[in-house]
Amino acid sequence: MTRKPPTVPAALEPEFVAELKQIFEERIVFNRVLGIRVDHLGPDGVRAEIAMRRDLIGHYAYNRLHGGVISAGLDAMAGLAVMAAIGARHMDEPPAQRLQRFARLGTIDLRIDYLRPAKPRSGITAEAHCYKLTRSIAFVRAQAWDESADDPVATAQAAFMLTGAPA
Amino acid sequence: MTRKPPTVPAALEPEFVAELKQIFEERIVFNRVLGIRVDHLGPDGVRAEIAMRRDLIGHYAYNRLHGGVISAGLDAMAGLAVMAAIGARHMDEPPAQRLQRFARLGTIDLRIDYLRPAKPRSGITAEAHCYKLTRSIAFVRAQAWDESADDPVATAQAAFMLTGAPA
Amino acid sequence: MTRKPPTVPAALEPEFVAELKQIFEERIVFNRVLGIRVDHLGPDGVRAEIAMRRDLIGHYAYNRLHGGVISAGLDAMAGLAVMAAIGARHMDEPPAQRLQRFARLGTIDLRIDYLRPAKPRSGITAEAHCYKLTRSIAFVRAQAWDESADDPVATAQAAFMLTGAPA
Amino acid sequence: MTRKPPTVPAALEPEFVAELKQIFEERIVFNRVLGIRVDHLGPDGVRAEIAMRRDLIGHYAYNRLHGGVISAGLDAMAGLAVMAAIGARHMDEPPAQRLQRFARLGTIDLRIDYLRPAKPRSGITAEAHCYKLTRSIAFVRAQAWDESADDPVATAQAAFMLTGAPA
Repeated sequence: MTRKPPTVPAALEPEFVAELKQIFEERIVFNRVLGIRVDHLGPDGVRAEIAMRRDLIGHYAYNRLHGGVISAGLDAMAGLAVMAAIGARHMDEPPAQRLQRFARLGTIDLRIDYLRPAKPRSGITAEAHCYKLTRSIAFVRAQAWDESADDPVATAQAAFMLTGAPA
Repeated sequence: MTRKPPTVPAALEPEFVAELKQIFEERIVFNRVLGIRVDHLGPDGVRAEIAMRRDLIGHYAYNRLHGGVISAGLDAMAGLAVMAAIGARHMDEPPAQRLQRFARLGTIDLRIDYLRPAKPRSGITAEAHCYKLTRSIAFVRAQAWDESADDPVATAQAAFMLTGAPA
Repeated sequence: MTRKPPTVPAALEPEFVAELKQIFEERIVFNRVLGIRVDHLGPDGVRAEIAMRRDLIGHYAYNRLHGGVISAGLDAMAGLAVMAAIGARHMDEPPAQRLQRFARLGTIDLRIDYLRPAKPRSGITAEAHCYKLTRSIAFVRAQAWDESADDPVATAQAAFMLTGAPA
Repeated sequence: MTRKPPTVPAALEPEFVAELKQIFEERIVFNRVLGIRVDHLGPDGVRAEIAMRRDLIGHYAYNRLHGGVISAGLDAMAGLAVMAAIGARHMDEPPAQRLQRFARLGTIDLRIDYLRPAKPRSGITAEAHCYKLTRSIAFVRAQAWDESADDPVATAQAAFMLTGAPA
């Protein structure tokens, strides 16, 4: 089977990466509640960890991660992947200008497939990459796993508007 | 246009309702983080409120609810709607026995359409109803709004397995 | 449960309805292959019939409708519902001008839930309504049934761009 | 970014491949209407061509493929990918026995993202692979393109029940 090769745009500047990471982890308040820590942010995609905590459990008796943590985490990561792709496309703009595009980004829809229950020992990893970016719209694929990327607990697809949320 | 009339099964016993509400609000830990309070739980569907808090904001500068709060909230409410439907179908079983079915409920997938940004003054309301329940599978439709049910911020559809999460 | 009341815009002019129906049924060639006949086209939604034919069967041994007929039919009806909604919003424009908007309509995504196998005796009915229309985007809900609207075989949700397909 | 390596099960026997291909192309009548020709059918996925024909056009003035052809084609290919995966898992069963599993396969849901309009010169190619197969459920990812696999016109995700359609 032919597989789509990853597009390879320019690398992002450390300055842009650091600022976007900071906005994402700290100023988007609910991401702090989830405890998302970004460990990769590049034109090829983004990856983050959510450390397991008692707060994030579904039913107390089962120690399974709440499905909503996965849906919220993949939702957040999908948006970050679009920002990384936008950042790579507009390298001619200063970082601060590109970062303002974040405010105009609106999710159109998100679909999550839950492949199996997540029973993480230490946490989950989520990664997302924007595989289609036009002037007005972006499509993202994402996945999350507990032990191995080869055995994901959930996969997701999302579509975004770049020109402001629907109004 | 013909609209599907709501199916009208028997009402749920107060005992079942109280116990399910308590499990949902308290023992599913992440629901406490979201602050979901159920105000209707019947065979016709479920409804809950999530009070606005600073924790639930997306970007600090915009006061918009984080998309992940909506996705996590609709995810949780969709599961509760299936439990209400199961509860109504198995009225011959004692409440405790029906409640154990919760543990075998697994989300297959969830799709959320974000119709517009949520800028709630006091909070959001989410409702869900299970419109198809077979022995092995359930389909749910849900929506969330900030000011009026006539102008939702998001709608969702979800499918569930009743026989244990995929394994 | 509070239910969203249907929005009630002005009725569409017979001239617009006749022309849109003709484009949809005749000039969109694949719709002729499916054999879709529109029997309602209004601001409140659209409804059509697909008569059962041997061509539309899935596996020969089971007489079930091919899932692809349902997905293609719901896809087509969802687009028609957006056109009806656009037609109702721009009553100040002459019909011919409104009909040209059809060419700029692009599907962003479509999700179909298959509730049960379709074993139609005479055919299936599909209806769709556009429940959110902004300047740039539209959201549609649709369903199909064989015997009764109360027992659909499939439900669908779709999102559309009004400003040309993504490019 | 870590990418999931393709699982590499045993190859399928020519006998099974030939029989499944024949059922899919000939006995599933609507697939003949679409004109799907399978050119790869293996444990790693399936691929087929739909040759362009006037019948498959959307609006006559634009020569774009009808979105319903893409949705129906991806729907069909997703099911075939599950059958290929089932075929590879049960190599201990005679081909005829494995093929009977086809009748019990039911689509739960299908989501299609339309990345751009399809304006094929000669036709479209669709490929699908089943990336998760349990005893009761299967998840599939699929895509279609006109000129190059690196620039798809649509991507899809689907979930299937293996134990009979919901009833």
